[in-house]
Amino acid sequence: MNDFISLNQGSGGKLTHELISKVFVKRFGMNEPLTDSAILKVSGNTLAFTTDSYVVDPLFFPGGNIGKLAICGTINDLAVSGACPMYIAASFIIEEGFPLNDLIIIAESMAEEAMKAGVKIVTGDTKVIEKGKCDKLFITTSGTGILNHGLEHLSKGNHIKPGDKLIINGSLGNHAIAVLGARKKLSFTTPVISDCASLNHLTDSLLRNCNEIRFMRDLTRGGLATVLNELSGMIRSGIAIDEASIPVDDPVRGLCEMLGFDPLYLANEGKMLIVAGAGEASKILDILRSDQLGKQAEIIGEIIHDKKNLVVLHTSVGGKRILDMPSGVQLPRIC
Amino acid sequence: MNDFISLNQGSGGKLTHELISKVFVKRFGMNEPLTDSAILKVSGNTLAFTTDSYVVDPLFFPGGNIGKLAICGTINDLAVSGACPMYIAASFIIEEGFPLNDLIIIAESMAEEAMKAGVKIVTGDTKVIEKGKCDKLFITTSGTGILNHGLEHLSKGNHIKPGDKLIINGSLGNHAIAVLGARKKLSFTTPVISDCASLNHLTDSLLRNCNEIRFMRDLTRGGLATVLNELSGMIRSGIAIDEASIPVDDPVRGLCEMLGFDPLYLANEGKMLIVAGAGEASKILDILRSDQLGKQAEIIGEIIHDKKNLVVLHTSVGGKRILDMPSGVQLPRIC
Repeated sequence: MNDFISLNQGSGGKLTHELISKVFVKRFGMNEPLTDSAILKVSGNTLAFTTDSYVVDPLFFPGGNIGKLAICGTINDLAVSGACPMYIAASFIIEEGFPLNDLIIIAESMAEEAMKAGVKIVTGDTKVIEKGKCDKLFITTSGTGILNHGLEHLSKGNHIKPGDKLIINGSLGNHAIAVLGARKKLSFTTPVISDCASLNHLTDSLLRNCNEIRFMRDLTRGGLATVLNELSGMIRSGIAIDEASIPVDDPVRGLCEMLGFDPLYLANEGKMLIVAGAGEASKILDILRSDQLGKQAEIIGEIIHDKKNLVVLHTSVGGKRILDMPSGVQLPRIC
Repeated sequence: MNDFISLNQGSGGKLTHELISKVFVKRFGMNEPLTDSAILKVSGNTLAFTTDSYVVDPLFFPGGNIGKLAICGTINDLAVSGACPMYIAASFIIEEGFPLNDLIIIAESMAEEAMKAGVKIVTGDTKVIEKGKCDKLFITTSGTGILNHGLEHLSKGNHIKPGDKLIINGSLGNHAIAVLGARKKLSFTTPVISDCASLNHLTDSLLRNCNEIRFMRDLTRGGLATVLNELSGMIRSGIAIDEASIPVDDPVRGLCEMLGFDPLYLANEGKMLIVAGAGEASKILDILRSDQLGKQAEIIGEIIHDKKNLVVLHTSVGGKRILDMPSGVQLPRIC
């Protein structure tokens, strides 16, 4: 590892894992693989607990802003663990000279998103930094909530079996491309809107109606490819993915082709991967598709026997390629 | 309020309160007065939950670094609420090019401080920002722990009565002056060391042995004067403080006189105010003084009848002055 931190180490991919593993995990006595939320025992209850810093640039983008993103991100980290998100703490690092009005708009989005999701923002902190010493505004949100009984396996994936189906709730890459578009002031014929949304009502409805959901994870920094690689490593199984079945909206696909991005590696903030028993896959699809946040849901692949724990992508043109963990960063500061 | 955020709004004093009150409190449905930790009901248990961003400049100072500070700060926010600090989440915003070795040293301090305090760092996040877009390293820590039964009044102070004594566990201003010294590369004849320390073992021992502890609060950003003003407003009582009884170490006092700072407004990170029934004050003093972190403990004043809720300082030279809430910032980025 380099002597100095590089942007690539913030990618969410291989280099981020290596950094976290080398610097933090052992010293803090954490257990790998790390999951989105820590699962904790607190006097008879099981709690999920999570934190994320949001440094998205620009602060406002089609479909959201840094505040909405911070609330959705923390809610989703808890929701995919099988927890009921309850309380959020929000800490603000603000650059001197930041427009008060923008801060109010951002706080309003946070309040609105929290209210929709049924979560309370209960505590916070505000620091102000000299002009030029931070980039406008960073928000760190932490959240906690009760883990529903018997769902401890959801973040670990230790109930997953070969033959289980992989399902995603919609098209990939909209968030990253919406942020990039706002950053570079690109204009699209068909506007690209971030998918930024809280998934807790959807996960709740899935968990109440299905018995064979074996894993859930939101597809944020590093995208689907990163989550699939983390999963295959965690459960020591192969994964086969069918490229043709993965929904990607036309403007996102177009821009990816132009700029050389791969939508499978792009960040989302309202998308999740679900692994479930094959027998329940179509029921899950029905539940997802009946919800605004899952209209484009698709079964995209399955868990397979493979001693090398590889993620194999069956491409649209009939070939096969290995979908590796990203090492560097495609787009920095996307969340 | 100004249209643009100013450094003074990060002071922890009047302007910070006004900002938080105007932008966040109502929108987030929070209840004022805000306390260091939110007190939450989670399926039969009462939890304390807190968050703080640390942006101290420089990152290393005599007696600690940003990592140790972040852990102690979060532990102390929980401890003074009467909670047993259990779990911490740590989120890092790192500037590209930051020395890996410094990050390792900081992570080691965090691990060491957490271990000493008996707290686990269970989850985290790492973001990397382009060079020049943030100042080296910011850390946000959030923490949670069980609130001991029957201690809900401790952060509210609603059991406080006129005649109750005010006690602090040691001398004021060492943290702020140590950080300022490191920032400005000052050299002191007698070195000034930050008091940065976790107070949870001390608060635990106080709460186990005493029945009349009515309020505790750590004396961080804004110092003793800010906490006293928050308290008098909260309980709608006057407070009388005896300046001569407030311990301030000679080098801190000397530098304050030279630079025009008031030690009563300076930040500490291992000091707290305790309000207790007069009958128990000397017992509390004994417990504090028998601990390394309370050797210089003193009774510094008492709660008085006063319709104007003023904090009155009886000065060393025999006069009286009103100790007001700071409006601006004496020293930015001290925590």
